[in-house]
Amino acid sequence: MHIFTLADILPIIKHKALVIDAVRSGFVAHAKGDMLMSAMSPAYPYFCIKVASGFYNNPSKGLPVNNGCVMLLSAETGTPLALFQDEGYMTSVRTAAAGALAAELAPLKTANRLGILGTGHQARLQARWIAAHLGLETLSIWGRSSENAQAVATELTKDGFNVRAVTSLSELCEMSDIIVTTTPATTPILSASHIRAGHHIIALGADSPGKTEIDSAILGRADYIFTDDHAQCLHHGEFGAAVRAGYVSDQQDSSFGQALSVVAGPIAPTIEPNAISVVDLTGLGAQDLAISAFIYTALMENMHMA
Amino acid sequence: MHIFTLADILPIIKHKALVIDAVRSGFVAHAKGDMLMSAMSPAYPYFCIKVASGFYNNPSKGLPVNNGCVMLLSAETGTPLALFQDEGYMTSVRTAAAGALAAELAPLKTANRLGILGTGHQARLQARWIAAHLGLETLSIWGRSSENAQAVATELTKDGFNVRAVTSLSELCEMSDIIVTTTPATTPILSASHIRAGHHIIALGADSPGKTEIDSAILGRADYIFTDDHAQCLHHGEFGAAVRAGYVSDQQDSSFGQALSVVAGPIAPTIEPNAISVVDLTGLGAQDLAISAFIYTALMENMHMA
Repeated sequence: MHIFTLADILPIIKHKALVIDAVRSGFVAHAKGDMLMSAMSPAYPYFCIKVASGFYNNPSKGLPVNNGCVMLLSAETGTPLALFQDEGYMTSVRTAAAGALAAELAPLKTANRLGILGTGHQARLQARWIAAHLGLETLSIWGRSSENAQAVATELTKDGFNVRAVTSLSELCEMSDIIVTTTPATTPILSASHIRAGHHIIALGADSPGKTEIDSAILGRADYIFTDDHAQCLHHGEFGAAVRAGYVSDQQDSSFGQALSVVAGPIAPTIEPNAISVVDLTGLGAQDLAISAFIYTALMENMHMA
Repeated sequence: MHIFTLADILPIIKHKALVIDAVRSGFVAHAKGDMLMSAMSPAYPYFCIKVASGFYNNPSKGLPVNNGCVMLLSAETGTPLALFQDEGYMTSVRTAAAGALAAELAPLKTANRLGILGTGHQARLQARWIAAHLGLETLSIWGRSSENAQAVATELTKDGFNVRAVTSLSELCEMSDIIVTTTPATTPILSASHIRAGHHIIALGADSPGKTEIDSAILGRADYIFTDDHAQCLHHGEFGAAVRAGYVSDQQDSSFGQALSVVAGPIAPTIEPNAISVVDLTGLGAQDLAISAFIYTALMENMHMA
């Protein structure tokens, strides 16, 4: 078995466009119903097992909240092929790649302005990955702590972004076409009054039961709802919260993966410029499989070249 | 994270009595209801995640059927501490240790003769571990293939055992007080007519749905039934098969772990010499946690001494 550390993985992950395409293939396999288990599909000669831990007292001990690793095994023989000691980074990146793919669904305009809710690790990643993927340079950021928002803005400004920390959500929404919510909120932060025609909202904080970032009324007003997985989003995503609140029918979503199949093909997505659209991302095993297979292949190729 | 291979693990596993005691503690934690998840308990500062694969076409490729590895993580911080690339060996050994503990429950006699059904890796391990634990030297072995049974007998004879390959189950049962079934059978091999007063039967092949090695009528005749886990054995062990066949009530078993707590304490078990007893072993996460915690501690101590 090959043992790869974060130091091995980071140079591969730098190739954002390749990572995004790899994760896109994972979503397509998932949408086609190709996943045999959460992280096994005939589209891949591998399956993966991810250990992801979240210990919320860790910062007081000087340790990161999230940790874990990913193991890739042969789907033909069960042989463990690689262990990625990624410290949870591959999960962060496959989520960033999903955000970039979700942003791709926004109506194409000459300048899609990006707004980010949240100031954590994923907020920074979403800013970088969506900006790189869509060629954006202008973005706004909002956090419950203005200081934290300013810190993220300062960091991104140093890297050449035109970024502004804003102190109100109304301001953020006025200045943005694509809005990405990246918080661990358990009560809605974004309310329906913030939303106007043309907003494309990507909600990725509600990745486990009890979490919700956006008012269910927003989904009630949305012309398009995309989910990464219908059943999973019904169980614990924003979609499920809106269904339980009676704002939308449980049959109403479109699959995000199906939408990506369209994007991947010759037909452009058809969200009208004045439509409201919501993408509900809860995180899929298909993403873990896609990114670990991609990184493994890339690392093995590097080894053979060296 | 420490990476340990089978070569690191084997010298630790040689200490059978220590391994058996470690696995005993796992059963006791399980029986006390101390397991928070399948492989996490406040009795241990660790939790473990086991990847175990069984690919039945592998031998045609020159590969072993079973493979996998075990990861040990801190229960306080989620930090991955060790990866054991054990090729499935720790699972084999914790099952062997469970067999030795189950054999301990047999009525104490001057000479408990051992009989083994099956000729695979686990059959060999059960012979070695039970013999070592109870100080037995005499055993019989039976397999569907007489050749294979003879091969195991020859191997064990070389190691100083007084072992005989027998060609009929009647003969095996006549010559044995403790009978261990280690086959992957899906229809019963051992029938009620083979069993007489005083037999202590340890059934460990029925570790997943559809597997069964012993006629349910044997459990109907048994004075004692022990399970490693009531619910799990009801789901897919010999106990569940006997309940579904109407031979025993679903409330009838005693917990194997509870029995071990008794053995571990000052009170000897009280199975009468003429009773029939059955131990149904399906395999527990508590065993995986116990053995991986034990091996980790031993390896870390060796490191500090070196």
